[in-house]
Amino acid sequence: MTDVLVDATALREFYVRAFQRHGLSEVDSETCADGVHHADLVGTVTHGAGMLNRLYLTMLREGAVDPRAVPVPVRRTGATALVDGGNGMGFVSATFAMREAIARAGRYGVGAVAVRNSSHCGCMGHYTRMAVEAGMIGLALTNLGAQGLIPPPGGRDRLLGTNVLAAAAPTREAAPFSLDMSAAVVAAGRLRLARDRGERVPPGWLADADGEPVTDPAGYFAGTADLRFLGGDPATGGYKGYGLALLADILCGVLSGASVGTDVAGGALREDADIGHFFLAVDVGAFRDDGAFRTGLDRMLGTLRGSAPARPGEPVGYPGLPEHERRLSSAESVAVPAEVVAELDEVAARLDLPAPVRAGRPVGT
Amino acid sequence: MTDVLVDATALREFYVRAFQRHGLSEVDSETCADGVHHADLVGTVTHGAGMLNRLYLTMLREGAVDPRAVPVPVRRTGATALVDGGNGMGFVSATFAMREAIARAGRYGVGAVAVRNSSHCGCMGHYTRMAVEAGMIGLALTNLGAQGLIPPPGGRDRLLGTNVLAAAAPTREAAPFSLDMSAAVVAAGRLRLARDRGERVPPGWLADADGEPVTDPAGYFAGTADLRFLGGDPATGGYKGYGLALLADILCGVLSGASVGTDVAGGALREDADIGHFFLAVDVGAFRDDGAFRTGLDRMLGTLRGSAPARPGEPVGYPGLPEHERRLSSAESVAVPAEVVAELDEVAARLDLPAPVRAGRPVGT
Repeated sequence: MTDVLVDATALREFYVRAFQRHGLSEVDSETCADGVHHADLVGTVTHGAGMLNRLYLTMLREGAVDPRAVPVPVRRTGATALVDGGNGMGFVSATFAMREAIARAGRYGVGAVAVRNSSHCGCMGHYTRMAVEAGMIGLALTNLGAQGLIPPPGGRDRLLGTNVLAAAAPTREAAPFSLDMSAAVVAAGRLRLARDRGERVPPGWLADADGEPVTDPAGYFAGTADLRFLGGDPATGGYKGYGLALLADILCGVLSGASVGTDVAGGALREDADIGHFFLAVDVGAFRDDGAFRTGLDRMLGTLRGSAPARPGEPVGYPGLPEHERRLSSAESVAVPAEVVAELDEVAARLDLPAPVRAGRPVGT
Repeated sequence: MTDVLVDATALREFYVRAFQRHGLSEVDSETCADGVHHADLVGTVTHGAGMLNRLYLTMLREGAVDPRAVPVPVRRTGATALVDGGNGMGFVSATFAMREAIARAGRYGVGAVAVRNSSHCGCMGHYTRMAVEAGMIGLALTNLGAQGLIPPPGGRDRLLGTNVLAAAAPTREAAPFSLDMSAAVVAAGRLRLARDRGERVPPGWLADADGEPVTDPAGYFAGTADLRFLGGDPATGGYKGYGLALLADILCGVLSGASVGTDVAGGALREDADIGHFFLAVDVGAFRDDGAFRTGLDRMLGTLRGSAPARPGEPVGYPGLPEHERRLSSAESVAVPAEVVAELDEVAARLDLPAPVRAGRPVGT
């Protein structure tokens, strides 16, 4: 698998133009481009450039989402809001909602916003990062609408999504803390990638009906092996990952009125529509002097970084640190798998747009 | 290990009297008794009757906590508060703080309260249950102060606590959703229990310096085996449990000004003092009609319950259901291990109190 270095600014600009060609306003196109590009920058290009055509542009082309939808706050109290995404792009409603949460937290100390009738909104770490840039602690959860990808522990029916929980907090000098995790051992996209590359997956990701480990990702797609929740076996906490997935469905779906995983049992719904999100912003300054908080977090993370490593030469890290380092190293150019670059070239040809340039020279020259 | 059935009301009453004899006001004694008794009722008697003398009364006897401390809200904004527990009983400051969060959520839709200078406050599910009883979604997190029990993944130094995250949501007829989990595979108390009973622990709880599984709990106490974070190996998400532990230290410690796990590296602090908590209450009615929410959650949980089990005759459950069933079955009497009953008898003799009665007749007759 060869990677091609693509100019980061040009890549983002390409996303903007591609979204515009699919009927989004310039502002909304920028919002979506930033969301897609976040994944490129933190090192999950499969969720960035790799998703542009396969998911986002396809949804737009097929009319599954409304490119002109405007998120509407249908209910507001002092510190909360319920937003209806109008079946538009998830990036647009999620960005709107996190901004609402931040604004409310600025006034009341904490802000909570639930979103219904949305769609796939990319990496949740993109939204918690917005909170961090506003000097706040951010939490962001999403469900997957009525997608049944994973059975409850002790059950056979795939009734739950690989729901996601993200959290981030601002620092003074250290890389910000940033956790962005699925409640499943891994997201289903990792299984697809392994299958497409002909690779095995580690024991612990998949299990057959008897609970025995399966390492061939094809088993997941054939329905002979199921994805496991974080924690794995009951003895090692599998019910905890399950519980976190339910919490996400409760906050994102039941609270907002969006679909939840178990709705798949009803069979009436389009499985990737009516996704729900939940955003929380906590204003550090409402609790404690902002500087004291940042210094305290720097100290905590620094102590971890400076502690004795299990293997000499491999320093201890923390969630957010690798993403921060990749973001620094990808500020100018992003390493994109060759087959994804080819996909972007096809999109460019189809939309009659200039292809994104390789770092220094145009792709394909 | 024999269990003795103890009258539930008499057991709680015994706690009230025992706390009063240690200098707590009647109101605070009731608050602490309810917190201890919650653990008895949901089936973790080790955290209830089993902790009364070993932890709570010992802290009071040794003067480690102030029985007359009054929690003080040192900072308040619209929807948030920072509470100083005054080095008092954790039950008292945590109960005060969750009530604050609920009151603020009632007014602003969401309420967030951080607590510093507290102590061990029992099961976090006790506090999320308060939110559920107020018709709200509750989140409750605690750190363990400056206790270093578990090293970061890839590190050797025990720099983090087995921090806890709990969440609960109200239903109409179903048992409420209630998740109460450590960010470690298990809490350290489970290791102590296994050691005291001469039992092995499941593979996945402990690992040696090379990451190999250890099943003898003595290894943890000897320092030759470390407790693992939820998720286990890096490949199966161990960094997620680590991230959840850090999130708890950030919300409970860095945000409130309480101690955090990494402070153990400083060496200057008493390890189980200055614990921090964080409570969030979300008023369902601020987002959606309360009845629609409860019906929706009943439907989601009911679909899970009614789905095909992996093993015939073992229906699918969810977090909160076993605890709810145990609470119903223990309303009149609690099964307490014989050695814990003996401990309670000693406490009774020492404090010149009537011993808690066995269901129907006094203990010891």
